[in-house]
Amino acid sequence: MNETKEELILRGEFVLASPFEEPIKGGAVVIKKDRIVECGPWTDIESKYPGARLLERSSGLIAPGLINCHTHAPMVLLRGMADDLPLKTWLEKYIFPAEACLTKEIVKTATLLACAEMIRSGTTTFVDMYFFERQMAQVVEQVGLRAYLGEGIFDFPSPAFENAEKVMEETRDLVVHYKDNPLINFTVDPHTPYTCSSNILVASAEFARAHRLPIVTHLSETRWEFDETRSIHSKTPVKYLDELGLLGPDLVAVHCVWLEESDIDLLAQKNVNVVHCPESNLKLGSGISPLARLLDARVNVALGTDGAASNNNLDMLGEMDVAAKLPKGILQDPSVVTAEQAMYMATEAGAKAMGAKDLGRLEPGFQADLIVIDLDRPHLRPCYNPVSQMVYSATGGDVSDVMVAGKFVMEKGRLVTIDEEKLLSQIRSFQNQPFWQEGPCS
Amino acid sequence: MNETKEELILRGEFVLASPFEEPIKGGAVVIKKDRIVECGPWTDIESKYPGARLLERSSGLIAPGLINCHTHAPMVLLRGMADDLPLKTWLEKYIFPAEACLTKEIVKTATLLACAEMIRSGTTTFVDMYFFERQMAQVVEQVGLRAYLGEGIFDFPSPAFENAEKVMEETRDLVVHYKDNPLINFTVDPHTPYTCSSNILVASAEFARAHRLPIVTHLSETRWEFDETRSIHSKTPVKYLDELGLLGPDLVAVHCVWLEESDIDLLAQKNVNVVHCPESNLKLGSGISPLARLLDARVNVALGTDGAASNNNLDMLGEMDVAAKLPKGILQDPSVVTAEQAMYMATEAGAKAMGAKDLGRLEPGFQADLIVIDLDRPHLRPCYNPVSQMVYSATGGDVSDVMVAGKFVMEKGRLVTIDEEKLLSQIRSFQNQPFWQEGPCS
Repeated sequence: MNETKEELILRGEFVLASPFEEPIKGGAVVIKKDRIVECGPWTDIESKYPGARLLERSSGLIAPGLINCHTHAPMVLLRGMADDLPLKTWLEKYIFPAEACLTKEIVKTATLLACAEMIRSGTTTFVDMYFFERQMAQVVEQVGLRAYLGEGIFDFPSPAFENAEKVMEETRDLVVHYKDNPLINFTVDPHTPYTCSSNILVASAEFARAHRLPIVTHLSETRWEFDETRSIHSKTPVKYLDELGLLGPDLVAVHCVWLEESDIDLLAQKNVNVVHCPESNLKLGSGISPLARLLDARVNVALGTDGAASNNNLDMLGEMDVAAKLPKGILQDPSVVTAEQAMYMATEAGAKAMGAKDLGRLEPGFQADLIVIDLDRPHLRPCYNPVSQMVYSATGGDVSDVMVAGKFVMEKGRLVTIDEEKLLSQIRSFQNQPFWQEGPCS
Repeated sequence: MNETKEELILRGEFVLASPFEEPIKGGAVVIKKDRIVECGPWTDIESKYPGARLLERSSGLIAPGLINCHTHAPMVLLRGMADDLPLKTWLEKYIFPAEACLTKEIVKTATLLACAEMIRSGTTTFVDMYFFERQMAQVVEQVGLRAYLGEGIFDFPSPAFENAEKVMEETRDLVVHYKDNPLINFTVDPHTPYTCSSNILVASAEFARAHRLPIVTHLSETRWEFDETRSIHSKTPVKYLDELGLLGPDLVAVHCVWLEESDIDLLAQKNVNVVHCPESNLKLGSGISPLARLLDARVNVALGTDGAASNNNLDMLGEMDVAAKLPKGILQDPSVVTAEQAMYMATEAGAKAMGAKDLGRLEPGFQADLIVIDLDRPHLRPCYNPVSQMVYSATGGDVSDVMVAGKFVMEKGRLVTIDEEKLLSQIRSFQNQPFWQEGPCS
């Protein structure tokens, strides 16, 4: 639609190609089709691409698009339905009964809302575990975000599928259907080591490996899970998954709050990817992940918001802030988990977790997935250090432009692929008549 | 200027008069001059005030203005100048040398920037401790925010004053000068119990009490301070101040991170006000305040952002989020520090701390200090629970309108009393030529 035939040049106040590189003051990014051609000072680029289209973002900080490495996007419809409750009450009295009422149509609407929110807050790729991922894929394709979608696998029926075999059939089918679409990718998602039998865990991993898909699972999120697993299997959740052969560079282990030192070593040794979701871990009272130790052990740690019901937003800029600050307070050391490390978690580490070799940095040949943060706002001035500004000062609302694979999905604050007014009016109807109140569902 | 001669009616999707009251769906607030006349359902108000001016905010959540109970506003100019460093390095190599270069003019510009940021993020009252508060008062008066300003008192000269006596002279003079301006208030601010001698602490308290001004001090912020005070005075910082007679309902004790159980009891018993600054405590590695225990002990705990150099913004909506989530994660209990409690800290508790009996709630006879949050944004829909939405989902950028004492300082996203474009252009010059690089200052 707005794909670049010739080069497109985006010129900003700063270009931040990656958190550990020096920001380019007065920089520009050259894009052709879905790829980045070059990043550099405007003076180097100015006369190099005659005929290119130039877009000026004079107060813009151009940075890689954010990768939300764990969410349940349609849970935006459950945002604020219940908060501040004991976990069991929250899940059993509110979340599960509401989810039992989900339909394909509701999931599609919810996904559209989540996409609008994610785009507005600078996410270009998200990794999702939920139900009705086929319907989600349709919406994401239409919106133009990049996604890794995983249909939840359980020992029991989900709101969408009868059993694990049906989920694998569906996943096989979706992989074939979307094989030529680089934006829509799939994962295999056994929900947790305690909601899946060992047979299902092993079968999921075999299926994933046969199809070269990442395996995503929640792991060692709560003290209860940690204690329960040790009581039943006489080992920690991490070691239990190791015994079953699941640990490897294709495993994306979400949460990892409760870890023994030897679990951390094992995660590092097996090149497991961890997704840190600090706001959700705090809000649900799950605990505090030993993030600084994971990073010290050179575990690849990506960042995720988790679902909006336990956050309560999908704002990766806010999530970076908490990820960087929390360990400083816990360890009483302001030098642990730097702003650069937090931004790395939200970009390159996410790409690495998903096995994407051309995502997460603004580098020649990489996918043109990028965002612009408008620095001309009182809380973002003065800007001495763009990384610090992104992590510690900015929030989702400061993003002005979002590009995925060379196409704008937000341009100068306007969503390109979503009729936002219509969407919000639809969601106001949901608000006035919550879908789970239509009657008891099962 | 835009003061209401007749009644002004602000009608919203919700009116949230206080966090523990039921939100009024389809509610309205009636304002006359600087006061609130009534809050209620639109149906009750509709025909009651003929001739009143009606302002529609159909997707607006109308709530009390936020009270930032601790900041060093001009430090916005030091935002992101240095981060993630050991506290001593950060202070001695960056912050103190920069502050030595401050001038009255720089403080005025910085204050204007801070006011713009605070208004945009919904703060209507702020409590400041810094240097050159006379110059700050001039700016705040022109902007129309409500403030409590305290000139820092030390054992040694500050960038603004030679000694404590000069500060008290200045404060006496300012109090007289602003006695007829209900928006500009003053406090007496001995910096900390370790940067002020016991004589100065006692003299400050006597001076404050003679003039009926609140006493503001940093207290028990770091482990170092806690240990050092015990080593020198054989008691905790809280008990040291008690011995000097400082504890009382007019004391505003900022931070209180390091507390023994008996300190908490003492703070409660003496009706001391505590200001919690969770983001700064995290970012500087100071530690985690025992907030839930303070609240259980019925200590009045208000909320503050601290300065932008250790936050790095002045966003009270973000601060509420962290205040509510952090104790849940630490205590592994999602039910502690509810969204309602966090909002109370950011509104009524702040008013109580400053001894303001007509601030912090939307109630007949109270000051018309209020904000409107525009809910028609993807991350704020659906809105089942306005308090949850404010605390867990919203950020500063979601505020559309801000009124102080019946006058708009932001209306539909536009700053009324600040030329924002001119200000930002001025700040860009500061950014390009940081003021502390002009040469060594002293």
